[in-house]
Amino acid sequence: MRKYTPVNFTDVRLTGKFWGERVNTVLTHSVPSQYDQLVTHNVLDSLKLPKPPPELTFPRNEYGFTTQIFWDSDVGKWIEAASYALHHRRDAAIEKKIDAMVDDLEKAQLPDGYLNCWYLGREPENRWTNLRDNHELYNAGHLLEGAVAYFRATGRRKFLDVMERYVDHIAQTFGTGPNQKRGYPGHQELELALIKLYQLTGEKKRLDLAAYFINERGQTPHYFELEAQRRPGDFFIQGTQEYNQSHKPVREQDKVVGHAVRAFYMYTAMADLAAELDDAGLKKACESLWKDVTATRMYVTGGFGSSASNEGFTRDYDLPNASSYCETCASVAMVFWAQRMLNMDLAGPYGDILEQALYNNTLAGLSHDGERYFYEKPLESDGSHKRYEWHPCPCCAMNVARLIASIGGYFYSTSEDGLIVHLYGGAAACLKLAGTEVGITEQSHYPWSGAISITLDPTEPAEFSLRLRIPGWASGATALVNGERFAVADHVRNGYLDIRRLWTRGDRVELELPMAGERIYAHPEVRQDFGKVALRRGPLVYCIEQADNGDTPLPVVSLPREAGLKSAERKDLFDGIVTLQAEARCLTDEGWQGLLYRATPPAMKPVTLTAIPYYLWANRGSNPMAVWINES
Amino acid sequence: MRKYTPVNFTDVRLTGKFWGERVNTVLTHSVPSQYDQLVTHNVLDSLKLPKPPPELTFPRNEYGFTTQIFWDSDVGKWIEAASYALHHRRDAAIEKKIDAMVDDLEKAQLPDGYLNCWYLGREPENRWTNLRDNHELYNAGHLLEGAVAYFRATGRRKFLDVMERYVDHIAQTFGTGPNQKRGYPGHQELELALIKLYQLTGEKKRLDLAAYFINERGQTPHYFELEAQRRPGDFFIQGTQEYNQSHKPVREQDKVVGHAVRAFYMYTAMADLAAELDDAGLKKACESLWKDVTATRMYVTGGFGSSASNEGFTRDYDLPNASSYCETCASVAMVFWAQRMLNMDLAGPYGDILEQALYNNTLAGLSHDGERYFYEKPLESDGSHKRYEWHPCPCCAMNVARLIASIGGYFYSTSEDGLIVHLYGGAAACLKLAGTEVGITEQSHYPWSGAISITLDPTEPAEFSLRLRIPGWASGATALVNGERFAVADHVRNGYLDIRRLWTRGDRVELELPMAGERIYAHPEVRQDFGKVALRRGPLVYCIEQADNGDTPLPVVSLPREAGLKSAERKDLFDGIVTLQAEARCLTDEGWQGLLYRATPPAMKPVTLTAIPYYLWANRGSNPMAVWINES
Repeated sequence: MRKYTPVNFTDVRLTGKFWGERVNTVLTHSVPSQYDQLVTHNVLDSLKLPKPPPELTFPRNEYGFTTQIFWDSDVGKWIEAASYALHHRRDAAIEKKIDAMVDDLEKAQLPDGYLNCWYLGREPENRWTNLRDNHELYNAGHLLEGAVAYFRATGRRKFLDVMERYVDHIAQTFGTGPNQKRGYPGHQELELALIKLYQLTGEKKRLDLAAYFINERGQTPHYFELEAQRRPGDFFIQGTQEYNQSHKPVREQDKVVGHAVRAFYMYTAMADLAAELDDAGLKKACESLWKDVTATRMYVTGGFGSSASNEGFTRDYDLPNASSYCETCASVAMVFWAQRMLNMDLAGPYGDILEQALYNNTLAGLSHDGERYFYEKPLESDGSHKRYEWHPCPCCAMNVARLIASIGGYFYSTSEDGLIVHLYGGAAACLKLAGTEVGITEQSHYPWSGAISITLDPTEPAEFSLRLRIPGWASGATALVNGERFAVADHVRNGYLDIRRLWTRGDRVELELPMAGERIYAHPEVRQDFGKVALRRGPLVYCIEQADNGDTPLPVVSLPREAGLKSAERKDLFDGIVTLQAEARCLTDEGWQGLLYRATPPAMKPVTLTAIPYYLWANRGSNPMAVWINES
Repeated sequence: MRKYTPVNFTDVRLTGKFWGERVNTVLTHSVPSQYDQLVTHNVLDSLKLPKPPPELTFPRNEYGFTTQIFWDSDVGKWIEAASYALHHRRDAAIEKKIDAMVDDLEKAQLPDGYLNCWYLGREPENRWTNLRDNHELYNAGHLLEGAVAYFRATGRRKFLDVMERYVDHIAQTFGTGPNQKRGYPGHQELELALIKLYQLTGEKKRLDLAAYFINERGQTPHYFELEAQRRPGDFFIQGTQEYNQSHKPVREQDKVVGHAVRAFYMYTAMADLAAELDDAGLKKACESLWKDVTATRMYVTGGFGSSASNEGFTRDYDLPNASSYCETCASVAMVFWAQRMLNMDLAGPYGDILEQALYNNTLAGLSHDGERYFYEKPLESDGSHKRYEWHPCPCCAMNVARLIASIGGYFYSTSEDGLIVHLYGGAAACLKLAGTEVGITEQSHYPWSGAISITLDPTEPAEFSLRLRIPGWASGATALVNGERFAVADHVRNGYLDIRRLWTRGDRVELELPMAGERIYAHPEVRQDFGKVALRRGPLVYCIEQADNGDTPLPVVSLPREAGLKSAERKDLFDGIVTLQAEARCLTDEGWQGLLYRATPPAMKPVTLTAIPYYLWANRGSNPMAVWINES
């Protein structure tokens, strides 16, 4: 069982400006516009079976592959995001749209439960013949997450019933029994979805199927290799099973490799199973993998994946900036994984990196207006990198939407002996705890300010621990309890401040996390960041973008080490943000007329640099940007 | 007519160690081993026609293209290099080999003179149908250069006769006449070869054909476009005629674009024609192009070409280091072009850049042992870039060999009123000048030392100018004439020191070009070199290579601006060179255990850096290297 249980987002009201605005944008803009895109790009049309398959919207590449095979997952993920939106505001029109999709899916489903619109529409004879590449089980996972979410939002069972039949079929098809295939997902995802189904229905067989997929992965003889031998002329473009993390059994894995989203979805399921089944071996593997990726293969923006070619990891400390991949889905998946780790152990790094991935790489994936997206995300751009309105593989669009729409679910956990606060901002919840009901009201302008006021309102006075995450960046945090100084340093354990007392109605904790512009340096082995510095303020990593810096040539800017970083409230930018300003220098081309090289160093001139939070870049057209700034 | 005429290399003896060693290596190792490679890779076999065409050694790429179509040019270029070698040492065995090739070529030649072994062997019906891509006229040019060189070396005419017949056929085929094709080479080269033929035979029609090709290039209607329309399904991978510099008439060109070798071979021919025909328009175009490339698109190593995709130029100041293309052939071609510019105007930049391209990017193209090569040449390597023993497109191997074997030809020019010294080193020559014969004896350990002693021995006392190039890097040059101080500053004009006097036998000039380690900076627009410095000593650009720097991690080294650069004679390296040493610093990973980012900057520790001349890198296995070093 989970030691710490996240409070469901449906029990958390977001009352603050920061998340209030983001959630509202997703509800008002992202979810409806994504529906329109699904219509425009024939995705919803692909559910209407049987019919002659139309021309491919996204033609096959030279290897015969098209991203169109994951369309089911886009439908599932959109239903999930839309269902989360329904918790904020019921909306009959959206529900009607979802019901229509569910009707199509029900009609498409075979009597034996099989349900994959690509295969049913185009190559029914080939189902379950290429788990490695063709995302059948991945699609099932996203449809299942959608069905669970829609049932939770509306109580309507039809989609859930359809998906439970499909899961039954999958459970019959795959396993270690005599007539079963010993396969598992080529793109992990169904595993974590099955655990959500288990958590909804309590049926242990769902957990068992997830555990089977996790434990079978990477066993020998290798399923994907056997399967490939049965496909004449098979070509595995990625060349290595590290790509899908089936290169060895998952319990033996301690190095984060391959495709980042596959990896993190799998680790999420592993951590879920470790908690649910009290499985020490899986937990240990998760801890090793966590340590590995956060110490060697993570961008300062909480992005993951250095390389486009495998959408994933390369080698330790290889973190190029202009070509960083940092897929939005990967940091969304990191948020999932970090949350699952927090279900087992209350450790600051899990919460810190959840926050780092969320506020930076993940939020950057959605435009300020909520209708444009990033897939891959460089940390440095010459201005050519643009947001898209739709993508041949639109996975990130719905992923960031479903996370933001359910963000309240990452704020609090409860345990036997207390209440834990992971994220800060304006929020309120009412929880069952220590034998009573406890109202919690958080007030804060976080992430712009580190002043956080928390009021607890237990129905009956109750003794329990209130645990508050003290982020790694917040040195010198202070706290008042009902106006009296609380000795923070004496009560922080592993990144969480433990205030244990008898709480009565109206007790107030005022936490102050000192928030100022700060410099961050990368490990010396990160060659690409040598001589460079990144700027951070609170949980936000900053970048310099051309739009705020006149004609200063950003690539030849140099920030003296001693220059102060001034926080400036800017009500004129993005409905009010805090920028960082610094006096820096940049090269001038004085005296270079006609010369390409010379023995005299180029002169520098003073410039004022303005940095904005990374998550806001590329909202004023595409223009040059850098996270890592040359330091002198 | 040329105002300044280069002294033929056959009249120059190399007596010094530096060029003596390089020339000897080419004669002893490069020329024989290249012959063996031509045999091994079936190149010589391809001359034996008619016969059924064998399997392609280098299969066609996805566009149906194989580098095997330039094999004739490799043969021509090898014959040229071997012929230059014969001037140093006659060698009956080599001559027999060349004669056998010539016999094959003669047999292959059609009665009408056509001679291209690719087309004759594989698709005779398609000759002259794809000038843009298929190198027919380029191959003709290299065969012609080989024929001219072999005739000059041996006096044997057969190859020259064959090639004159082929040139006659080409002259009949191409031109502005009624039944002629208005085509020109897709890869320029024949133009400059025709001028060599003219300079050998004095037949004006050869010059006229060269001038036709130059003047027709880029006229409308565009020949390559018309030709492409006649090829069903034609695909032009490069997409733009800038690639082959036919995007506009050459006289209107002032921007260096496209494929670097094509460009520089063309500019060489343009400068030749400008001199031979006293053509002010062509001269002006050459000057504009020279100014453009040297001010915006040249690597500090005298390499050219920023991009592999077009083997050429991209945009101004785009000079990436790890992915620099810098094909050996391009800097060889720059040496040709610079020499042709010096035939018209005695200007320091022409000589300086000739020297820069020669001593750095060009010499780097040949290994110390003379049997391994670079095609593309990065200015920074993580250790993965290796020399090759042979290449599907081995053009650079024979190009560097033919240049080194004839290097004496770049030392001196004569003019109506004097003798000009462009390059320094141990050399001797006997020249006709000012109505008498003048012996010149140069003694120097150049490029390791800037002390140069020149003795003139005119048969009769004669008044003329001795002009000595004062390189741009040599500030504070001094000179003694017969032991007496000569006022250098008063007599330098445009980079050349003019010593005019009545010279008598045994007159001696001692020139001292102060040579010390120096720092070079790149124009601020070269973003890739921001915060970095290159090291130079005399004409040599240096690099730091791992082999000389223990376990110092070169990418995180920083050279303080005030650190001295110490020249150190190292007899143990490469038969004796001068290295540069400096006290620098590098990052340490102390205190980073388990951390990827932190707020404290990484510490640095002192290291001693040793730099070697760039041309010598990658001779001790492939290992990390950098020309541009971080400066602090």
